[in-house]
Amino acid sequence: MHDWARHLFPFNRSLTGDGVRQTLNFIKAHLPELQLFEVPTGTQAFDWVVPKEWSISDAWIADSNGKKIIDFRDNNLHCMGYSMPVNKIVSREELEPYLYSLPNQPDAIPYVTSYYEEKSGFCLTQNQKESLGTGPFHIYIDSKLFDGSMSYGELLIPGETAETILFSTYICHPSLANNELSGPVVALALAKYVQSFKKRRYSYRFLFTVENIGATYFISKHLEELRRDLICGWVLTCMGDDRNYSYVPTRNGNTLTDRISRKILKDLGEEFTEFSWLDGGSDERRYNSPGVNLPVGSLMRTKYGQYLEYHTSLDDLKLISPIGLAGGLSMLIQAVDILETNRTFKLTVKGEPQLGKRGLYPNTSTIASDATVRNLMNVVSYLDGELDILEISGVCSISYKEAVFLINKLYEANVLEIVDKQTIEIKSRPAFYF
Amino acid sequence: MHDWARHLFPFNRSLTGDGVRQTLNFIKAHLPELQLFEVPTGTQAFDWVVPKEWSISDAWIADSNGKKIIDFRDNNLHCMGYSMPVNKIVSREELEPYLYSLPNQPDAIPYVTSYYEEKSGFCLTQNQKESLGTGPFHIYIDSKLFDGSMSYGELLIPGETAETILFSTYICHPSLANNELSGPVVALALAKYVQSFKKRRYSYRFLFTVENIGATYFISKHLEELRRDLICGWVLTCMGDDRNYSYVPTRNGNTLTDRISRKILKDLGEEFTEFSWLDGGSDERRYNSPGVNLPVGSLMRTKYGQYLEYHTSLDDLKLISPIGLAGGLSMLIQAVDILETNRTFKLTVKGEPQLGKRGLYPNTSTIASDATVRNLMNVVSYLDGELDILEISGVCSISYKEAVFLINKLYEANVLEIVDKQTIEIKSRPAFYF
Amino acid sequence: MHDWARHLFPFNRSLTGDGVRQTLNFIKAHLPELQLFEVPTGTQAFDWVVPKEWSISDAWIADSNGKKIIDFRDNNLHCMGYSMPVNKIVSREELEPYLYSLPNQPDAIPYVTSYYEEKSGFCLTQNQKESLGTGPFHIYIDSKLFDGSMSYGELLIPGETAETILFSTYICHPSLANNELSGPVVALALAKYVQSFKKRRYSYRFLFTVENIGATYFISKHLEELRRDLICGWVLTCMGDDRNYSYVPTRNGNTLTDRISRKILKDLGEEFTEFSWLDGGSDERRYNSPGVNLPVGSLMRTKYGQYLEYHTSLDDLKLISPIGLAGGLSMLIQAVDILETNRTFKLTVKGEPQLGKRGLYPNTSTIASDATVRNLMNVVSYLDGELDILEISGVCSISYKEAVFLINKLYEANVLEIVDKQTIEIKSRPAFYF
Repeated sequence: MHDWARHLFPFNRSLTGDGVRQTLNFIKAHLPELQLFEVPTGTQAFDWVVPKEWSISDAWIADSNGKKIIDFRDNNLHCMGYSMPVNKIVSREELEPYLYSLPNQPDAIPYVTSYYEEKSGFCLTQNQKESLGTGPFHIYIDSKLFDGSMSYGELLIPGETAETILFSTYICHPSLANNELSGPVVALALAKYVQSFKKRRYSYRFLFTVENIGATYFISKHLEELRRDLICGWVLTCMGDDRNYSYVPTRNGNTLTDRISRKILKDLGEEFTEFSWLDGGSDERRYNSPGVNLPVGSLMRTKYGQYLEYHTSLDDLKLISPIGLAGGLSMLIQAVDILETNRTFKLTVKGEPQLGKRGLYPNTSTIASDATVRNLMNVVSYLDGELDILEISGVCSISYKEAVFLINKLYEANVLEIVDKQTIEIKSRPAFYF
Repeated sequence: MHDWARHLFPFNRSLTGDGVRQTLNFIKAHLPELQLFEVPTGTQAFDWVVPKEWSISDAWIADSNGKKIIDFRDNNLHCMGYSMPVNKIVSREELEPYLYSLPNQPDAIPYVTSYYEEKSGFCLTQNQKESLGTGPFHIYIDSKLFDGSMSYGELLIPGETAETILFSTYICHPSLANNELSGPVVALALAKYVQSFKKRRYSYRFLFTVENIGATYFISKHLEELRRDLICGWVLTCMGDDRNYSYVPTRNGNTLTDRISRKILKDLGEEFTEFSWLDGGSDERRYNSPGVNLPVGSLMRTKYGQYLEYHTSLDDLKLISPIGLAGGLSMLIQAVDILETNRTFKLTVKGEPQLGKRGLYPNTSTIASDATVRNLMNVVSYLDGELDILEISGVCSISYKEAVFLINKLYEANVLEIVDKQTIEIKSRPAFYF
Repeated sequence: MHDWARHLFPFNRSLTGDGVRQTLNFIKAHLPELQLFEVPTGTQAFDWVVPKEWSISDAWIADSNGKKIIDFRDNNLHCMGYSMPVNKIVSREELEPYLYSLPNQPDAIPYVTSYYEEKSGFCLTQNQKESLGTGPFHIYIDSKLFDGSMSYGELLIPGETAETILFSTYICHPSLANNELSGPVVALALAKYVQSFKKRRYSYRFLFTVENIGATYFISKHLEELRRDLICGWVLTCMGDDRNYSYVPTRNGNTLTDRISRKILKDLGEEFTEFSWLDGGSDERRYNSPGVNLPVGSLMRTKYGQYLEYHTSLDDLKLISPIGLAGGLSMLIQAVDILETNRTFKLTVKGEPQLGKRGLYPNTSTIASDATVRNLMNVVSYLDGELDILEISGVCSISYKEAVFLINKLYEANVLEIVDKQTIEIKSRPAFYF
């Protein structure tokens, strides 16, 4: 995943344009089933309109000697996203309104965009700004805003039911690693994991689009089927640093998405932060918005806005690590495993089954039963067809994996039957063998 | 309000009699629409009966030289409420059972009554009691208990619906300032505030009566309509000191009255005490009693029983202050404002509205959105016609006023429609402009 | 109760056999109405089968001089429960697999059984084990396993309704005092208490059986009627030491059994531990098992597994005490008293009754009403026919006994009527006079 991120890092992504297309093509090279779409400028999506396409070939500030002192070719972030073309000589004073820097982080180039208002701008470090000199300066942006299209990719992996799990990630930030490249590369790895199953209970939908307008367009196009089929979903972003684990819940706060996410984080055994819905700020906003109301949350490593490097040039490839990305991916693999294995069982006998004769209970009494036997007896006490594995592991205070392990033993001992609606043969599920 | 209290302070109020009538007339002078009622002695009110009327013209204890050493004309509290006439010479020992004082508060005259048992008594400070001398004493009370009537006043301010808000206060305590004059004067000011609206959503009922039997009579007379129309109500007492803010909830504990009261206290930003229903002891007991069950709570400054001066001569005009009364009144004004403005809204667009093009969202991205933008986005996320402003301000952890401010902006930007049952034009509500 | 326990202590109880019969006969001598049952070996009980009967007449280990160094006649625990016959000379090494001791408790003989696997074994202290010498040893067990029966006793005490309260205790542990003799002797005393009522609202069922298979058989035999009639039940064990008070709730956690148990423990005014359902391990497991689901909890003194002496020879008659047993019994007497008195009442007047004229409220006002008056007024405020005494005592934060005392006063003052379904005359209940 880190290699993929390194490959994708230099592409100049934005809301539209060739950087996005390059990114999608790279993903499609690894996921041939990915379908690519182009949505023309001006297309309506609820209250929004797909904007013009933006392309840029060059952008710089030169000093009075003609030396380029700020150059877009050094770093995509130097040119504000959706900057209009400009080509003129300006004084230091006239230059000022074009400049964006961070006085508190003098080494960081900020990431700034102006999608919905026509402006031009340069982003630079505070140190660069202070050493610009007195001018005059030549500022030059060779960009174009034109009727084109917005690009996105979608992968559908069908399952035995139409019930669908959504993983949505965005691909509009240029040369930023944790927010955002970690999202697409983890989504890519996760899609390969889901494809590797021989069969699967649920259908899966992976969306690679641009933030906000991209998700809004996707929802507006598929609202009816999403509201009918979507049972769970996550926005994938900030998945690659190795500091924290985080969760932004759905607006409802108690959906299947929330219950699975909380269990994953608890089972991790590491510290994590559950934020409030009020703290969210990415596409889960769109999925949970009034009139849409889809159960989409966001499992992350360190959340956007919670780390200093966020939305600056310091959010680079050094910030994410193979181990950080693996931690992010493992949460989502666990989510898929829970979804695929989370069945409801009922004992085939009344009362407590005699586990001793089935080799699951010690025949010689001891003073204290060990933890596994105790957990087994606790699980047994809830196997009345009311609670699913996720709920049983919760009330029994054991990890989801241990609950699956114990229930599988009982299932193999023929004292359990599956009583949920689907009838996929439980033993065929690879996820049962962690 | 403090001036009104100063004017009313000397009147010798009791359960019945001219002190009550003087008080009601003073209030009617400021609220000409106030209706005055007389309820004859012997009238049944549920399990209770309106008692005889009591009048008193003089009461004193004189020493052996004929010098009045305790005199009702110095302080109404010196004579126990509903004392029977007496005129005799008594020894110090014979005097003892007539005397009420507070050993722990040697400078305070206690407030004592005996409405339902025929007794005579004098209340005096412990210091006075200890310097009475050896006697003999002449004790004299010129009072009368006779078939008369109980007086009360009621003000009805009609609104666009019959749904009614009740403010109930009592006027039976002589020369006591916080408990009770603060209640009637704040009620008077509040009634003027409500009358000042050009129109109002709800109907308002202000009751100035005597504690317990007065409220019980009022309930018994209007039970059916109160149970049909009353949606919210407060008992007004102890509203004038400048120490604490307090709330006694309804018996149910989760009525609209409770939700509004808690929000007001939280928005105050000052410390407050929410008592339990079990701690209440005023007329909210009557309103919430079995078979009556009306949602009436009590917002107060320092609660009765929680301050040393309570029910003694030290609860005088010095205990209440203009600023204390203003604090009490402001809670109730806020209650009215919430009631009048608390509508339910729904976005007229699906998904998130594009606020940038409406001037409500910055068009140039920044690293961290400011608190107002963040609160606005959070409010937007709940505008699906399910929650009213009170609930939205709660889930978004912002003050009610800020929620109104933000929702008003959205309403003016034409992305909201009102979806509650009444269709009063929102912009006409003065309460929207805090 | 302690005398009974002393009498029963030496009997060699096990899952089946004459020790159990001796125990049941002793109980029947005190409770002539107790019905005794024998269930033949091989009888099916849900997933379980009644095992063979076991009898033992002798068991010992002798040293090379023929001296018995471990002798079952010294302590029943020396022979593992359900040991098969053995009679041979073994070396020290060959002896090892027959031995059970506790390295961490060198003075305690452990209690070990092997009901469902045919083995032989001796239990001894670690000190005894270390001083056994080098051998050879003669090991001898004269026991028999044969088609016989499992014994148990049941007492039915009928009440005015078929609704039934169950007290279930077990009688299969030899020479162990807190776990288990405290259970049967407290059950015996409690049964006598229930029999002493002239009449009773509920029916009571006392079960003296063996743990696990005994309770499972009982449930399988009576499942339909138990599910129809059982409203409350407790497993009685570990009732006799004087250290802690404990509760293991029902699986549901919020049944009448749980609510009563929690109130009893709270009213005790002593420290107690409420365990989780997950911590339970006795017959409440059987009663709450899937497909059975009966509301049975377990009120205890110090819970099994929570004291060092548990399941060893140190759990002897010194561990339990008359005062400890009395504490255990008093909890269950309180449970019966609550069940028998827990009615629902409604005021016969609307609003607050005038208690002054009925001598229940002071006629002369004072500054602070005393706690009894305050509690009375709080109780009155909930007497609307919705909550029963148990619930009212909870919301009013008073003991159940105080709630009964106050409600009885109101009932005698004729302001209350009973509104629950049964119409047993309240004053006839002895439990009303604590």
